[in-house]
Amino acid sequence: MTSLDDALEAIRSAVGPKGWIAEGDAMEPYLVEQRGLFRGSCAMVVRPASTRQVSEVVALCAGAAIPIVPQGGNTGLVGGGVPEGGIVLGLDRMTRIRDLDHLNQTLCVDAGCVLADLQAAAEEAGFLFPLSMGSEGSCRIGGNLATNAGGVAVLRYGTARDLVLGLEVVLADGRVLDGLRGLRKDTTGYDLKHLFIGSEGTLGIITAAVVKLFVRPRVRETVFAAAPSLEALMELFSASRHAFGDNLTAFEMVPRIGLEFGLRHVPGVVDPFAARHPYYVLIELSGIGVSLRETLETFLAGVLDDGHIADAVIADSQARAIELWRIREAIPEAQRFEGGSIKHDLSLPVSRIPEFVDRATRLVTGELPGLRVVAFGHLGDGGIHFNLSQPEGADRQAFVARWEHFNRLVHDLAHEMGGSFSSEHGIGRLKMDHLRRYKSDVELDLMRTLKAALDPQGIMNPGKVIEP
Amino acid sequence: MTSLDDALEAIRSAVGPKGWIAEGDAMEPYLVEQRGLFRGSCAMVVRPASTRQVSEVVALCAGAAIPIVPQGGNTGLVGGGVPEGGIVLGLDRMTRIRDLDHLNQTLCVDAGCVLADLQAAAEEAGFLFPLSMGSEGSCRIGGNLATNAGGVAVLRYGTARDLVLGLEVVLADGRVLDGLRGLRKDTTGYDLKHLFIGSEGTLGIITAAVVKLFVRPRVRETVFAAAPSLEALMELFSASRHAFGDNLTAFEMVPRIGLEFGLRHVPGVVDPFAARHPYYVLIELSGIGVSLRETLETFLAGVLDDGHIADAVIADSQARAIELWRIREAIPEAQRFEGGSIKHDLSLPVSRIPEFVDRATRLVTGELPGLRVVAFGHLGDGGIHFNLSQPEGADRQAFVARWEHFNRLVHDLAHEMGGSFSSEHGIGRLKMDHLRRYKSDVELDLMRTLKAALDPQGIMNPGKVIEP
Repeated sequence: MTSLDDALEAIRSAVGPKGWIAEGDAMEPYLVEQRGLFRGSCAMVVRPASTRQVSEVVALCAGAAIPIVPQGGNTGLVGGGVPEGGIVLGLDRMTRIRDLDHLNQTLCVDAGCVLADLQAAAEEAGFLFPLSMGSEGSCRIGGNLATNAGGVAVLRYGTARDLVLGLEVVLADGRVLDGLRGLRKDTTGYDLKHLFIGSEGTLGIITAAVVKLFVRPRVRETVFAAAPSLEALMELFSASRHAFGDNLTAFEMVPRIGLEFGLRHVPGVVDPFAARHPYYVLIELSGIGVSLRETLETFLAGVLDDGHIADAVIADSQARAIELWRIREAIPEAQRFEGGSIKHDLSLPVSRIPEFVDRATRLVTGELPGLRVVAFGHLGDGGIHFNLSQPEGADRQAFVARWEHFNRLVHDLAHEMGGSFSSEHGIGRLKMDHLRRYKSDVELDLMRTLKAALDPQGIMNPGKVIEP
Repeated sequence: MTSLDDALEAIRSAVGPKGWIAEGDAMEPYLVEQRGLFRGSCAMVVRPASTRQVSEVVALCAGAAIPIVPQGGNTGLVGGGVPEGGIVLGLDRMTRIRDLDHLNQTLCVDAGCVLADLQAAAEEAGFLFPLSMGSEGSCRIGGNLATNAGGVAVLRYGTARDLVLGLEVVLADGRVLDGLRGLRKDTTGYDLKHLFIGSEGTLGIITAAVVKLFVRPRVRETVFAAAPSLEALMELFSASRHAFGDNLTAFEMVPRIGLEFGLRHVPGVVDPFAARHPYYVLIELSGIGVSLRETLETFLAGVLDDGHIADAVIADSQARAIELWRIREAIPEAQRFEGGSIKHDLSLPVSRIPEFVDRATRLVTGELPGLRVVAFGHLGDGGIHFNLSQPEGADRQAFVARWEHFNRLVHDLAHEMGGSFSSEHGIGRLKMDHLRRYKSDVELDLMRTLKAALDPQGIMNPGKVIEP
């Protein structure tokens, strides 16, 4: 086995002077989780310029058993990119769009490409790359794939996993798995790409991908509707799916308290209705080569009659659509002005959401009267941000100190109801305990078997997702 | 280790008298590949009635190192279900639809459910389960998933893999992996289901699945168009995608020779046009809550003007649509009347298809003048049936004897152009040589690593897909 110093020296020479950072200030952005929840340390940040260099670096690390933490845009929220010793392997110099195939509707891209740049390249060619989320200006596609990111377009286009046709991966021994195929049908042996997608860098390092492109929708309709109850909202969701199929591209739940927080704290948020309603929904339809307005108007008249909604507005301009989206988007921002909050990144079978919200609300307010539940989010794909705002006037620190207590209550219930405690943020370091609690022994054992088979030395992002 | 006889006795007692077959005639359907290409043998056919029984049987086999060949409808075309000793484990008694969740748009089903029954259950509830193929009346969903089946709806809905949310699997030691979750977003550790989907029973036995349902399209338009060249057909494909997006649900290429074979041999096939054209395409549009006819008429007028098509008919009735589909569906049937044929189940990046067809045609006709290339199929998803009919009047046996020679030529070219030698039929026993030839050492090695990790005794469908 090579010594650490010898290996680091060999790595420096493999990547050249621009390919590594070893002094404090310059390393800082690679060591700190963006919210400051975690702070790591490492011997060196290595920034290879090519897949070949990644391969050389990993082979050198394997030879000296040096831990490697792969990093894209370092925008994760569960500490998956935080090092404890070893090296950080930053993909941020590998940003090339390798190829755009118009007829095949695919794009081949380096892992370090910023998501917004990838979206822009697709748009320039007349296409849509639908993966989209708050961090898109700084997160990188390799990280999006390594964590199987979700975002705002899952209802229609699926998660990051669903957008991949081919993958290039550097394995834990430095070998390159070249699976950069742009095929929609291929039954030649085990599917290797799905192993690495969502494995958070613990099985190998994604260095490039072939992703699917979609034709850009040219027709768009935005509606904001008020519903008398969550049950009515679910009826509305079902009716919308049956009326519009996959032209229904967003169905975002907003509770009254979410709108009120926005009205109170965020400029530009306006209540579209004169009356108060317990629930609202932001509906977006989009399509290609079709007209949706007439069907939409007929549909809304029908659901008003049925009592699924109490009122609705259709955006008559782009500006109005942005204003309606603002109501939904303002919620997390507004919540910060209401004191401490305890958050949950849940998903549930869509059909269980009303019962879950009801039971979970009774559970948490039973523990702490006055606690304010703000349950909002991507109702259409089962994703719920079940956020808890402190009681008015309560002590912020004392409330936030009960984070794990409330997490436990809410996660136990979600699990019991067939849901997930991590809908789109992954496991990283933050949720390893949860994984142990909610996965079966068979699942945990199989994950450990895969980890041991693909990374026998345990050098790939150690201390994340699952222990060996 | 238990002896074979003791283990078989224990298995018989675990599954009860209805759960096993050991005499010749009754075993026959489980031993023979449907085209008669392979004939296997085994000690016993075991037909468990529940996941628990599957688990018990596998544990008993594991204890005595007895090979297990899992079987669904035994409709595969590569010998993946053919036993060589050990037991056949037939899922054909496990046919229950466990649950249909309307709001979540999911269906939980036993692996032995016949695909057509699953489609019918979805339809009865107002939904579409889009997986569809010629064998749907006898193939079973577990087999469809184990082989990642394709079929006629891949362009719009993806392959079998894309339709799965959750999976229940009996592992090689008999333990049950319960992953029957109906979640669209879940980032809690490695994705275990995709390991088993497409692994052809060599890593574990799929016993149940949660699959996605879709709202049934209510608007459908069928068009048959003539194109002056394959290049023009590709332009038409691109224009169709941009005009209709995902409302384009089929784009099936038919060469002139395919139509002629149909006219010659299959009752009901009619040439819709007075003139002869080198290529045709069957286009299907479908949608929900939209009108497509007007856009379609405008679109066809435009592509006629541009020269992408030479002529077109829109089906004005369901009967006419069936007649137009008949042209496409008659090709394999008609080809049998033209003497021997050598077949290829290829996929390519869509953009490479014209060049591939041109080069492959020159290659094979260069080897054997008079040979007739019949290249047809799912152009929209990159799937090409590149079939070769013998020269007129040539000796059938002598032609078919060159199967492997022509396979090699065609597969080498497809591989060189980024294509796959097995688009939707898998590897089984028939294509293991091909897998070795076309996969990289890294890919093969990783597959072997997974096989060894998940099935260390090598009892799960041995002699299929990959050697240990």
